[in-house]
Amino acid sequence: MTDQELKPVLEDVIARTPFARFLGTKVISIHPGGCELSIPVRPDVMHQHHGFIHGAIIGFAADSACAWAAGSVAGDVVTSEYKLNLLAPGVGQEIIGRGKVIKATARSVVTQAEVYCVHEGKEKLVAIALATIARVEPPKR
Amino acid sequence: MTDQELKPVLEDVIARTPFARFLGTKVISIHPGGCELSIPVRPDVMHQHHGFIHGAIIGFAADSACAWAAGSVAGDVVTSEYKLNLLAPGVGQEIIGRGKVIKATARSVVTQAEVYCVHEGKEKLVAIALATIARVEPPKR
Amino acid sequence: MTDQELKPVLEDVIARTPFARFLGTKVISIHPGGCELSIPVRPDVMHQHHGFIHGAIIGFAADSACAWAAGSVAGDVVTSEYKLNLLAPGVGQEIIGRGKVIKATARSVVTQAEVYCVHEGKEKLVAIALATIARVEPPKR
Amino acid sequence: MTDQELKPVLEDVIARTPFARFLGTKVISIHPGGCELSIPVRPDVMHQHHGFIHGAIIGFAADSACAWAAGSVAGDVVTSEYKLNLLAPGVGQEIIGRGKVIKATARSVVTQAEVYCVHEGKEKLVAIALATIARVEPPKR
Repeated sequence: MTDQELKPVLEDVIARTPFARFLGTKVISIHPGGCELSIPVRPDVMHQHHGFIHGAIIGFAADSACAWAAGSVAGDVVTSEYKLNLLAPGVGQEIIGRGKVIKATARSVVTQAEVYCVHEGKEKLVAIALATIARVEPPKR
Repeated sequence: MTDQELKPVLEDVIARTPFARFLGTKVISIHPGGCELSIPVRPDVMHQHHGFIHGAIIGFAADSACAWAAGSVAGDVVTSEYKLNLLAPGVGQEIIGRGKVIKATARSVVTQAEVYCVHEGKEKLVAIALATIARVEPPKR
Repeated sequence: MTDQELKPVLEDVIARTPFARFLGTKVISIHPGGCELSIPVRPDVMHQHHGFIHGAIIGFAADSACAWAAGSVAGDVVTSEYKLNLLAPGVGQEIIGRGKVIKATARSVVTQAEVYCVHEGKEKLVAIALATIARVEPPKR
Repeated sequence: MTDQELKPVLEDVIARTPFARFLGTKVISIHPGGCELSIPVRPDVMHQHHGFIHGAIIGFAADSACAWAAGSVAGDVVTSEYKLNLLAPGVGQEIIGRGKVIKATARSVVTQAEVYCVHEGKEKLVAIALATIARVEPPKR
């Protein structure tokens, strides 16, 4: 699929994913092998006890960027496993997740993501992740 | 601290953690070295596009069970990193996270968690995690 | 397969695995769902620059305990991914790896392992791991 | 330290690391924030039961590339934890590990590595890793 075809397909997935929709997740861009998403920060819901963005929201951004990057080459997918390193407190008004495909096989897609927080217009890297995303259906020949 | 002293301390942390409070997270039990938590499932917020509980909610349960188990021996903590394997689709009315301390050092606490979904009264293991939880302050002598 | 049938099958795999054989790896026990292995420590080969057992040897023990536990229920397997937390310096004369199956599916087996070092007859936990082990062939019906 | 100063320091670490020396590990390059290493493949020692390079050797390359990249900015270090995705069978005559620093803090250094196998002069990506490397001493002010 082309970038133009992928974006509405992913927006439809988000529309059918209550948790992604609840967080206000938007697709910035998607192309075969990569995806960029944005989440507006709502402190009244998304913070933890030190006043930073909760790690589970950062984890959602990382996992979704990985899954959607994988989906750009593999169609319908689910996350098998991921590992997340939290690098800095999440501070700001927007979360950006950037995922890319490292390797796609017949069974699964290994992906990587970086998560940034945008504070007063400036991006800061707050997390990095590796994820294995499973294909729901085998690849078409 | 005793189990009786730990529970109100953790409930106070949850009360100051908007994302945990938003999800309706409750402490089932906490003791030095372990923690059990419960989250009631709200499909309209917590589901993903196949109608299962979203991995980010499962991840929250795993991360929180690990962090709170670590906090039971280390006081104020933040998550450094975790790795989560999703084992089965999350189906049911309640999520249970059980965390335990594997090893505490002067800098951090390595922990493990299992996440279960309770469907029609029956528990099923849906995820397993390993996490490194950092101490905010060095241990008291 | 029974425990009695599994042990010679695994010993044959070790005999055909030059790195495992080189390290002197022995099967202590294997049963459907779990495996225990032993490696005698050779400081002239296995140490790192602080005089402890090298993390790669600990990693081998963890990965092999996971893979062989998976193999006990899934036949021929390869490791897809693993995550290892090193908990204490590896000191002693023997390394013991204990792996168990957490969940087996049609594609892969999620496993966990603990690695111990035996020093002057006393076991100490030095590492914990989670691994996804892939089946080489699909499960028999 | 400059690149010229770092290389002999790392070569001295390797000389004092029996397992790295046993594998014939060489530093291709090191600079503040990154490291590249090479290991010549010895099938009689380094293979697994399918005739590919053993995952523990790939793991050693990943862990060492991470640890040495961390050491280039943090001095003496030890690995706290790593996660490795094996992407393709390891085939060839040389293993190359490339590590880089993602984020250094007062306690630890989060790093990433890619491992390649060189077969008949052609590089292929076989693994990717994320690692947390702990400082042995706190950073100098």
